[in-house]
Amino acid sequence: MTTIVRGGTVVNADRSFRADVLCHEGKIVAVGENLDTPAHAQVIDAGGQYVMPGGIDPHTHMQLPFMGTVTADDFFTGTAAGLAGGTTTIMDFVIPNPQQSLLEAYHTWRGWAKKAAGDYTFHVAVTWWNETVHADMGTLVREHGVNSFKHFMAYKNAIMADDELLIKSFARALELGAIPTVHAENGELVFQLQQELLKKGITGPVAHPLSRPPAVEAEAANRAIAIANVMNTPVYIVHVSCAESLEAITRARAKGQRVYGEALAGHLVIDDSVYRSNDLEFAAAHVMSPPFRGKHHQAALWQGLQGGNLQTTATDHCTFCAEQKATGYDDFTKIPNGCGGVEDRMAIVWNAGVNTGKLTPSEFVRVTSANAAQIFNMYPRKGVVAVGADADLVVWDPEGTRTISAKTQFAKGGFNVFEGRTVRGIPTHTLAAGKLVFQRGELRAVEGAGRHVDRPAFSPFIGAAMQRA
Amino acid sequence: MTTIVRGGTVVNADRSFRADVLCHEGKIVAVGENLDTPAHAQVIDAGGQYVMPGGIDPHTHMQLPFMGTVTADDFFTGTAAGLAGGTTTIMDFVIPNPQQSLLEAYHTWRGWAKKAAGDYTFHVAVTWWNETVHADMGTLVREHGVNSFKHFMAYKNAIMADDELLIKSFARALELGAIPTVHAENGELVFQLQQELLKKGITGPVAHPLSRPPAVEAEAANRAIAIANVMNTPVYIVHVSCAESLEAITRARAKGQRVYGEALAGHLVIDDSVYRSNDLEFAAAHVMSPPFRGKHHQAALWQGLQGGNLQTTATDHCTFCAEQKATGYDDFTKIPNGCGGVEDRMAIVWNAGVNTGKLTPSEFVRVTSANAAQIFNMYPRKGVVAVGADADLVVWDPEGTRTISAKTQFAKGGFNVFEGRTVRGIPTHTLAAGKLVFQRGELRAVEGAGRHVDRPAFSPFIGAAMQRA
Amino acid sequence: MTTIVRGGTVVNADRSFRADVLCHEGKIVAVGENLDTPAHAQVIDAGGQYVMPGGIDPHTHMQLPFMGTVTADDFFTGTAAGLAGGTTTIMDFVIPNPQQSLLEAYHTWRGWAKKAAGDYTFHVAVTWWNETVHADMGTLVREHGVNSFKHFMAYKNAIMADDELLIKSFARALELGAIPTVHAENGELVFQLQQELLKKGITGPVAHPLSRPPAVEAEAANRAIAIANVMNTPVYIVHVSCAESLEAITRARAKGQRVYGEALAGHLVIDDSVYRSNDLEFAAAHVMSPPFRGKHHQAALWQGLQGGNLQTTATDHCTFCAEQKATGYDDFTKIPNGCGGVEDRMAIVWNAGVNTGKLTPSEFVRVTSANAAQIFNMYPRKGVVAVGADADLVVWDPEGTRTISAKTQFAKGGFNVFEGRTVRGIPTHTLAAGKLVFQRGELRAVEGAGRHVDRPAFSPFIGAAMQRA
Amino acid sequence: MTTIVRGGTVVNADRSFRADVLCHEGKIVAVGENLDTPAHAQVIDAGGQYVMPGGIDPHTHMQLPFMGTVTADDFFTGTAAGLAGGTTTIMDFVIPNPQQSLLEAYHTWRGWAKKAAGDYTFHVAVTWWNETVHADMGTLVREHGVNSFKHFMAYKNAIMADDELLIKSFARALELGAIPTVHAENGELVFQLQQELLKKGITGPVAHPLSRPPAVEAEAANRAIAIANVMNTPVYIVHVSCAESLEAITRARAKGQRVYGEALAGHLVIDDSVYRSNDLEFAAAHVMSPPFRGKHHQAALWQGLQGGNLQTTATDHCTFCAEQKATGYDDFTKIPNGCGGVEDRMAIVWNAGVNTGKLTPSEFVRVTSANAAQIFNMYPRKGVVAVGADADLVVWDPEGTRTISAKTQFAKGGFNVFEGRTVRGIPTHTLAAGKLVFQRGELRAVEGAGRHVDRPAFSPFIGAAMQRA
Ligand SMILES: [Zn+2]
Ligand SMILES: [Zn+2]
Ligand SMILES: [Zn+2]
Ligand SMILES: [Zn+2]
Ligand SMILES: [Zn+2]
Ligand SMILES: [Zn+2]
Ligand SMILES: [Zn+2]
Ligand SMILES: [Zn+2]
Repeated sequence: MTTIVRGGTVVNADRSFRADVLCHEGKIVAVGENLDTPAHAQVIDAGGQYVMPGGIDPHTHMQLPFMGTVTADDFFTGTAAGLAGGTTTIMDFVIPNPQQSLLEAYHTWRGWAKKAAGDYTFHVAVTWWNETVHADMGTLVREHGVNSFKHFMAYKNAIMADDELLIKSFARALELGAIPTVHAENGELVFQLQQELLKKGITGPVAHPLSRPPAVEAEAANRAIAIANVMNTPVYIVHVSCAESLEAITRARAKGQRVYGEALAGHLVIDDSVYRSNDLEFAAAHVMSPPFRGKHHQAALWQGLQGGNLQTTATDHCTFCAEQKATGYDDFTKIPNGCGGVEDRMAIVWNAGVNTGKLTPSEFVRVTSANAAQIFNMYPRKGVVAVGADADLVVWDPEGTRTISAKTQFAKGGFNVFEGRTVRGIPTHTLAAGKLVFQRGELRAVEGAGRHVDRPAFSPFIGAAMQRA
Repeated sequence: MTTIVRGGTVVNADRSFRADVLCHEGKIVAVGENLDTPAHAQVIDAGGQYVMPGGIDPHTHMQLPFMGTVTADDFFTGTAAGLAGGTTTIMDFVIPNPQQSLLEAYHTWRGWAKKAAGDYTFHVAVTWWNETVHADMGTLVREHGVNSFKHFMAYKNAIMADDELLIKSFARALELGAIPTVHAENGELVFQLQQELLKKGITGPVAHPLSRPPAVEAEAANRAIAIANVMNTPVYIVHVSCAESLEAITRARAKGQRVYGEALAGHLVIDDSVYRSNDLEFAAAHVMSPPFRGKHHQAALWQGLQGGNLQTTATDHCTFCAEQKATGYDDFTKIPNGCGGVEDRMAIVWNAGVNTGKLTPSEFVRVTSANAAQIFNMYPRKGVVAVGADADLVVWDPEGTRTISAKTQFAKGGFNVFEGRTVRGIPTHTLAAGKLVFQRGELRAVEGAGRHVDRPAFSPFIGAAMQRA
Repeated sequence: MTTIVRGGTVVNADRSFRADVLCHEGKIVAVGENLDTPAHAQVIDAGGQYVMPGGIDPHTHMQLPFMGTVTADDFFTGTAAGLAGGTTTIMDFVIPNPQQSLLEAYHTWRGWAKKAAGDYTFHVAVTWWNETVHADMGTLVREHGVNSFKHFMAYKNAIMADDELLIKSFARALELGAIPTVHAENGELVFQLQQELLKKGITGPVAHPLSRPPAVEAEAANRAIAIANVMNTPVYIVHVSCAESLEAITRARAKGQRVYGEALAGHLVIDDSVYRSNDLEFAAAHVMSPPFRGKHHQAALWQGLQGGNLQTTATDHCTFCAEQKATGYDDFTKIPNGCGGVEDRMAIVWNAGVNTGKLTPSEFVRVTSANAAQIFNMYPRKGVVAVGADADLVVWDPEGTRTISAKTQFAKGGFNVFEGRTVRGIPTHTLAAGKLVFQRGELRAVEGAGRHVDRPAFSPFIGAAMQRA
Repeated sequence: MTTIVRGGTVVNADRSFRADVLCHEGKIVAVGENLDTPAHAQVIDAGGQYVMPGGIDPHTHMQLPFMGTVTADDFFTGTAAGLAGGTTTIMDFVIPNPQQSLLEAYHTWRGWAKKAAGDYTFHVAVTWWNETVHADMGTLVREHGVNSFKHFMAYKNAIMADDELLIKSFARALELGAIPTVHAENGELVFQLQQELLKKGITGPVAHPLSRPPAVEAEAANRAIAIANVMNTPVYIVHVSCAESLEAITRARAKGQRVYGEALAGHLVIDDSVYRSNDLEFAAAHVMSPPFRGKHHQAALWQGLQGGNLQTTATDHCTFCAEQKATGYDDFTKIPNGCGGVEDRMAIVWNAGVNTGKLTPSEFVRVTSANAAQIFNMYPRKGVVAVGADADLVVWDPEGTRTISAKTQFAKGGFNVFEGRTVRGIPTHTLAAGKLVFQRGELRAVEGAGRHVDRPAFSPFIGAAMQRA
């Protein structure tokens, strides 16, 4: 199978340039001006468009059993929705129950993911600790292509990690050459605030953000960063949602510490007024953690991306339908946490970022693809348009427009937090492993076509960290 | 008993002025120029000297059972040493064992303190949690004049408070109108670093500061401040020793949060080179937590006092003799933590602060006396030279000099961290409750003359905090 | 003339307490519980009320010739309005024209001020430089009770000070023991932005804030602070209006530098939406520099007052009537800059500060009176309720309410930026130099009753600065 | 001319990988594993070594007439020394006298540069302002490949730019698509401090750093950044030498502003103790501006490079011999300012940065080459090992060592600030435009072989800036 993308402007993290891109058997085999078109090659006309590395969403939850239910999107529908939006690789999470073997959980998730239409790879959560966890981390890194471990500082009485666990797991990650990641919210404070709110009779979705104020997130981010500093590991903070949390990252980076931060497309453009809606279904549909924030936090997150203190954009795609959300209308602590977005992230970030002059096209590629590939050591297989890379490409029409709606989306769940927004800058074609899987609104996702992406340990910056230790 | 201090310059936190001070029956009864000298009054000539409110040391441990031994100074020798240095009130700590009743511990300490020569009052530590602790906190505040509770974030497997305890205790303090205080060090990190160092064979006192780097302290300070912020309580951080921890305080204060910080005289002038001494006894004698720090931290602490981000100076006076310290020569984690200083704080702070132009004399009074009195609601009984206040006075000779030495000190323990320093600015007379207890090197401390100082709850700033809640 | 204020709660910067206050011949002669009422004494019942030191407004412009016209309030009407609002002392500005003798200008202003009903004192602006300016500064300090000099970093082609002038004047102030103050806006940037806006046809009041964005103010504040740092002088920044400028102050204070900042009552509660009004007269009436700012800046200023990074509140009272403002409707650069407020500052700060729990009553006294008295060395004559102080008192009813309006105000100019706000917490009586000049809405101001307040040089903190130099 | 570099590890800014590099007619024509060796090709064995893009030194002064003399290195010796150290491109400065035509000066410098052995390009300084300067800037950008303009905020009474000039020049640069750069020191403060020091009799080199403390640099950096912020231009700060200046950059970048900072190799490893040497010649040889700083500043600069707040490393190579320096022994203000380094920068940065784990090899390439190429729009012609790029390569032996000394250097001036340091990590071969110009200590530089590098305007980030404006 040979495909040539002709006449576009290739955008990489370091520069953009006019070039054709030739793909063969799933790989990019040539990038250059005026390439010859091989016989039988499929030709995609990218005239007037950008040709960029397919998006990497470093934070999704497909088919996740969570809070007593399972998300609406499975690995097929979720990755397919991603392809429709220009995202060709997702990084999902294996989340073992406390006391469950990490390896066992890992294999369960790998089984679920077999139906994926796009490429995928897994962060594995460390939700408890004993010697088998220590051992399983080694097996996962050495034999299963895992190079990142997740820690939840929230969710008390469930999967919350205390400092002892963080310390032990970070130390283990360092010796394995893996990077620790954290969901940063102080679970004790969340729990306390939830109890207070329920006691006061503030029980609906409006209470959700009140139970998780920015200080709760900032504290945990600062703590994870301090632990990483003392243990001499890098650390990656998922879904940074507020100025205070970003400040903790910025302070550490200013001191030279290897800290990475991720912003969600939703947090970049949606504010917390959604929780004050009288429409319970609407308000509950926005319940995720950390919650949407006041407007000035969105400005701060953009500044973080511009200044290089945040490196990636993600979605935390984790969809529940209205019926699932409804179980918590009277007790917001029971609303399944999660929102969608895997299908819309690229367009949302382009529209609000590139169209406004906040980001250059190359910076867009960094925050939607290249940086995630580098941090999680999939680069240059992923994250760049270059010879030898996977032929994961998105052809991007900077003048094309689309109005986002749950009615027209491919993702499940029946809701879209970006409903009604018209974006300028949309994918016209997506190639995944060289195959044209999306073309001008038509999705050709194939169940099972996605592959697991093994990620080796000891990325260069971890090597530097170990050298210092 | 009537005493008049004649011809000096009274220094209060707000200003200094020429005035005589007349004391009668333990109280100041007149402050003014050219006061008449009552018949039979004892006359103290303060010509060319300053007359200041007696020092308050908000952080001492007399007669403390700690790490399997008991400190060298008891309440008599400790308070007597304070009087010799111009400190007329100490704030000590009741530290219940986990599972021990707070009230029971409180009464034990009150019993020990009966022999004190100077006034005293107690912070009570919350080292564990259940309903009786909750109840005892109420009794202590309402019936025993306690308005501050201490929390140790360090000392894992002993008295360490986790976040749940901090949250519950802070919430309880707020409803009682008391102020939470914290020893800020992340005990999990300390424990991990201690184990690593021992494992590497770094077992002597030199390992002590390595097990408690600034990041460990700053993390805990930031966390305590975040919890206080979310719970809407003020918070007081004891023994702030490093720039990073001070920065956490400074950030919070810049946001308007009611955070207070204490600097120890030792941390202000001694650096961490002491731990690298080849003299094991010398090095071990400096083992305290947080440890002495690199030089730039001392500059930072002074800046904190100058800019108003630190409010008090203390000593954490907690003396052990060489034999006691020797138990840990081969395992630094077993060295009893603590150093002295109650006798020297005022002179050290004056010499390094006022003589250099860093602090004005009024600011000296703030950081050695008035601020502690205000924060802990003993003001204006303590902390000011004014009619109606306790006649606790220090007559200060700004030109007098003294060379500090264990050989000439009144405190026990046989060691002095300020050994050999010559200070300019020393007390010539100390009056405690109107009695002349120290005069030109001669100490007249009387066992049992000290009184417990009841401190009412709901100081003004706590009232404001509750109004906001 | 003897007056006794009975039954109130005296509020000073350091504490509040129940006491009667006895005034005789312009001075406070007794403060205590249950004072005897002298025969013939006027009795003021302060039951249920606070008795506080009269307000000091450290920044007013009465009878100012500015931008080709003269302000509506002269020293009589302006100080009288102050008395009605509880402000008993104003600090006004002598502003020589470039090339005009400082002494000559000083005497002109002293002449204008003879009619004042309340006490007054002058900052003198240094608007140009040569040897006579250098000499006049000395004369003013040594012979005329001036201890502060003002510098305008804005107003290019008029009174703008460049760095050379700032450096020379700051150095001269230090040797005289005086404190430099600055209006911090980069005048070159303002000029450039004004020209750009006019060129683009944005010529109405809406352009005013666009020509003076926060960065313009923050730059100048940072520069003045840096110059003060290098020259080792304290510095006082007038009318800090934005978060960025406050941050420059906060950073410097955190490093121990002696920097002081002033917030205007207007900047604390009014946002920049006023400039976007369709009512040209309304919009123009709000033209002052720095301009009103977006809402988050107001939150920041309150945090500055709470955390002690801002010390004073003022008004920059500088009133022009509608006809005067109208001259610039077509060219915003010609609108006379200035707004009123001297009558309302105390109530505005109490209502928005104390009623919300942001400030305690003692902190209110600090930021409305005591700190200004200390910084400008009028303390304890001003700024405290104590024996020996001037009998400048305001009796404050924390439950009294008033709706502010130009219709009912005493100040001139026919406009009030606080129009329609209902405040809780108002003065019921004002005593100036022991005379009852305002009582429950009735103003008894006497033309010429105000006195010039001499302010000695070498306040304590300046002494400390010189010691360091 | 065909050359192949075989068997090395290519290091680019984004990654490193095993590859041969084939060069033909001055360009890289192939990068890949196991390339065929063309007949007659010169073969360089890079086994066990890194192959990196030739260094770019963005800040040199060859053949500079300055302070009444001319630097020791001309464009031939200076660029040749660069080649010996692995630097293949220099960015030098055209510095017109005030009132001199920019174009005339430009042509003068171009004439001097004809003898260069390596590639070169010019920043042009804007040292005065009128309409012809405005016009010449346009001509330089449109016709002469200039895309950056330099502004000196220091050097009063010579080439110092005031705010008005900065504003006008920045605005002009933006419309031309060029980037403003600044030497950030407040020249008024420097002048004042110089006069004070001379007056006090502190006249030797020891006075030099005292006349330029960090606050002087930080003020100017902050001001340039503020002006750039208001004018909506990017800005590049040359030779950032201190923590405070870096903080100004870091703050702005955290707010998303496009600010770039450069660290000098000397500032990264040399501290200010050099000025306190009793050897006048030694001390004077280190006189440059900004001066060397206290040790903690060096740590800060490294953190800046690690955290991405500083982007480039340079040298400000500007050599004077001992006789030239001697003219100012009695008046430090007359010592010609400048030190060398173009020959040693790469090794110094590698040794202190990569060997310690502070930087990864890819980060080394960023800060020595790629970032400068991108910021100044020479990328991908320069700054990357890729097909189509100039064949400027350095083959780097990470285990090779060299002891730096003036005795063995190629640069002129007879002095080396890095004298006696042994570095690990040295160039074994340098290729410039495909020619082997340095091989294992043997320099084959050819006078006149260097070419002027035209740099187009409107780099991507300037485009984004204009979009926002
Ligand atoms: Zn999460
Ligand atoms: Zn998640
Ligand atoms: Zn402690
Ligand atoms: Zn203690
Ligand atoms: Zn002003
Ligand atoms: Zn003014
Ligand atoms: Zn320079
Ligand atoms: Zn230079």
